[in-house]
Amino acid sequence: MSYFDVASSAPLHPVARQALQASLDEGWADPSRLYREGRRARLLLDAAREAAAEAVGCRPDELVFTSSGTRALHDGIAGALAGRRRVGRHLVVSAVEHSAVLHSAASHESGGGSVTEVGVGREGRVAVAGYTDALRADTALACLQSANHEVGTVQPVAEVAQVCREAGVPLLVDAAQSLAWGQVEGDWSLLTGSAHKWGGPAGVGVLVVRKGVRFAPQGPADERESGRAAGFENIPGIVAAAASLRAVRAEAAGEAARLRELTERIRARVPGLVPDVEVVGDPARRLPHVVTFSCLYVDGESVLHGLDRSGFSVSSGSSCTSSTLTPSHVLRAMGVVSEGNVRVSLPLGVPQEEVERFLDVLPGVVAEVREKLGVSGVAGPGDADAVTVDALGMTCPQPVIELARAIGRVRVGGTVTVVADDEVAAVDIPAWCFTQGHEYVGAVPGSDGAVSYEVRRSAP
Amino acid sequence: MSYFDVASSAPLHPVARQALQASLDEGWADPSRLYREGRRARLLLDAAREAAAEAVGCRPDELVFTSSGTRALHDGIAGALAGRRRVGRHLVVSAVEHSAVLHSAASHESGGGSVTEVGVGREGRVAVAGYTDALRADTALACLQSANHEVGTVQPVAEVAQVCREAGVPLLVDAAQSLAWGQVEGDWSLLTGSAHKWGGPAGVGVLVVRKGVRFAPQGPADERESGRAAGFENIPGIVAAAASLRAVRAEAAGEAARLRELTERIRARVPGLVPDVEVVGDPARRLPHVVTFSCLYVDGESVLHGLDRSGFSVSSGSSCTSSTLTPSHVLRAMGVVSEGNVRVSLPLGVPQEEVERFLDVLPGVVAEVREKLGVSGVAGPGDADAVTVDALGMTCPQPVIELARAIGRVRVGGTVTVVADDEVAAVDIPAWCFTQGHEYVGAVPGSDGAVSYEVRRSAP
Repeated sequence: MSYFDVASSAPLHPVARQALQASLDEGWADPSRLYREGRRARLLLDAAREAAAEAVGCRPDELVFTSSGTRALHDGIAGALAGRRRVGRHLVVSAVEHSAVLHSAASHESGGGSVTEVGVGREGRVAVAGYTDALRADTALACLQSANHEVGTVQPVAEVAQVCREAGVPLLVDAAQSLAWGQVEGDWSLLTGSAHKWGGPAGVGVLVVRKGVRFAPQGPADERESGRAAGFENIPGIVAAAASLRAVRAEAAGEAARLRELTERIRARVPGLVPDVEVVGDPARRLPHVVTFSCLYVDGESVLHGLDRSGFSVSSGSSCTSSTLTPSHVLRAMGVVSEGNVRVSLPLGVPQEEVERFLDVLPGVVAEVREKLGVSGVAGPGDADAVTVDALGMTCPQPVIELARAIGRVRVGGTVTVVADDEVAAVDIPAWCFTQGHEYVGAVPGSDGAVSYEVRRSAP
Repeated sequence: MSYFDVASSAPLHPVARQALQASLDEGWADPSRLYREGRRARLLLDAAREAAAEAVGCRPDELVFTSSGTRALHDGIAGALAGRRRVGRHLVVSAVEHSAVLHSAASHESGGGSVTEVGVGREGRVAVAGYTDALRADTALACLQSANHEVGTVQPVAEVAQVCREAGVPLLVDAAQSLAWGQVEGDWSLLTGSAHKWGGPAGVGVLVVRKGVRFAPQGPADERESGRAAGFENIPGIVAAAASLRAVRAEAAGEAARLRELTERIRARVPGLVPDVEVVGDPARRLPHVVTFSCLYVDGESVLHGLDRSGFSVSSGSSCTSSTLTPSHVLRAMGVVSEGNVRVSLPLGVPQEEVERFLDVLPGVVAEVREKLGVSGVAGPGDADAVTVDALGMTCPQPVIELARAIGRVRVGGTVTVVADDEVAAVDIPAWCFTQGHEYVGAVPGSDGAVSYEVRRSAP
């Protein structure tokens, strides 16, 4: 059994478990009470806050514990926007933020605010200039993740923070994916994190608001956590979260290089082992433990099931499995293939043999799915000038499979038109052309959601 | 060491601890993932939801887990109000709700909604007619606690639910204080609870929305928990919460009668053991484990410290210790003395000897505080017609102590005027008159927050 999905949630770290169990006896009382049980709870809470602040790189009074990373993002963004309401209601986010940020942005927009999404390159990284261009006189807040959750690309946070600082705009950093690996560099203003991503328990997030940053908590008043996180404090969870962050950091220093080699090996080997694969994400500026690739002509769910049966737990940004955003807004923003997407995120301490076994198993799993879907191997020579394929009613990955079949029927320079109503085709057909070296001519919308995608055969 | 404050937070129940530890191994993965770790987490979550729903008395698909009772109230009230926005924006609450309800009401009001507070009698209980009168054509929601958190008075929830049902208005019941003891009766529409009040872990609340109740979750979208509670699920906490609710319910049946006898003994004995004490709350329609009394001429904080030194942890609704609402809005709404307030809430299984020891210790603790404050025993005969006391700058309980001293200097029928700027005096001086049998004539506001309170000596 190999769990390769720590970017979703990491198993509880042994230190977290010990800290949790120890604090169950001391940390259940109300820390605002004056009697001894309350004072003991308060001591635990204060110590956890100091430990977490030291690990994050902030003052203890700048950090509050929330009930999740999502809540830290929701409440942090809402509070920062409200704190600068007089300046304006413009929010800047990258196009590849976590859904909690994008949903906050949507909520802000539906409440009358405006939002600018900064795009990314094919490797999932924002350009600093993208933020420079997006900032306006009425910009209240900018958000940027420290590293992407689906492809592992590390963002230029310090540089973007500098640009924001010069414009007088606070930058909120979603550090959920990177806090285990180290502090976020640069002069950011707000920061959020999620304990279950670093081996802490579920139910604990952190929200840091630097001194001097205007912040107006939204929603009903509540005196807990400096008024920034409503509800009775989950002290055993908080103690475990803080203890495990310190423990994980101590291991991370040694593990980073080793895991980077293992993911590098996957990046290098997969394209040779599996035909028609695109490895996605920045090859160098990336988290050490994450590697993501997309397999043409298969659906992510079938690959995940096949890997699960072989003992590997991974996740997928394919539209077929993501219920939040269809298809993965990250892969869409990058312009890469979303079908057959597989994200591998390795746990600390994973033995190399497990990674080797994964590489042994993967080709067979993908081949089996392709065989079931009837995918032929190589495109034929072809002689037709133009072919039209009716893919109406077909879902991912079938329209791309039909396209791949049809391309073999036209001559080089000839065209294939795919008529499809699956919205994923809008992402995957251009991305397929890019990976296969064909020309993507364009798309013409028809009636009832049907779209005609035209592709010119460029490669022999 | 006797912890008599379970109404604030109960120590973790042994069953909760076992369930928590057992589910740490199985419940850390993302329950929305399709691989085996995710499926195991989903099974635990589903089973916990079924168990909690059975204990609460609802369908599993009506119940979601929130990160606290406070969050359940904040989000439940906001969602119910938004769901009936077309009907109107009027909210009805009792004057003695938990601060999370009153803060939600204040937030609703500041957002343009209107709020009616239904008052209570001296025993802390709402009259059903109070709700009948408050409901209007534009009422979107009514809220009523199942039992009061400061004085233990049980509210007529079933009757109020009936009145609301007839008016077509949903009733939200804050059941935080009573869920350990049983299901909430009546035809309510929404219900909230908090696990750490029943011996479950912190970080888990419940929100029940009956089928057919209009509900529109507010804030950024999030797919977890039917879109009603944002953030990654804290499954070990949820499992422990559900398991302990079942366990506590099983014990509660036997403990209710025993604890009721113990609190009845405190109710009966304290007025004989401590002079100038008012036992507050409904003597019959009350939670079995809660008893509250106020000691004249002392401040709650000093009494709490004295009891803490003697090994008893209790809480106080006195203004001197409450940082949320000053003074206790509950005692104020009841019109009872708030100074020297002590709430005893007994844990399941508490030995009778601990209660007896509390009764042994209490008189000395109160007497010691009174001695330090220089409170004389009995009012003298007195011969003056009118006396004015300058209590400006004095804080609770000093203005009432000055009044008690001065009353001994006037004849029966004579008056004492106390000039004070401590706002607690507005609660405690009328309440003192009631308990001592003197006539409270009225209050005349002066400048700079000073108020002149006039009292006529009626008792000899």
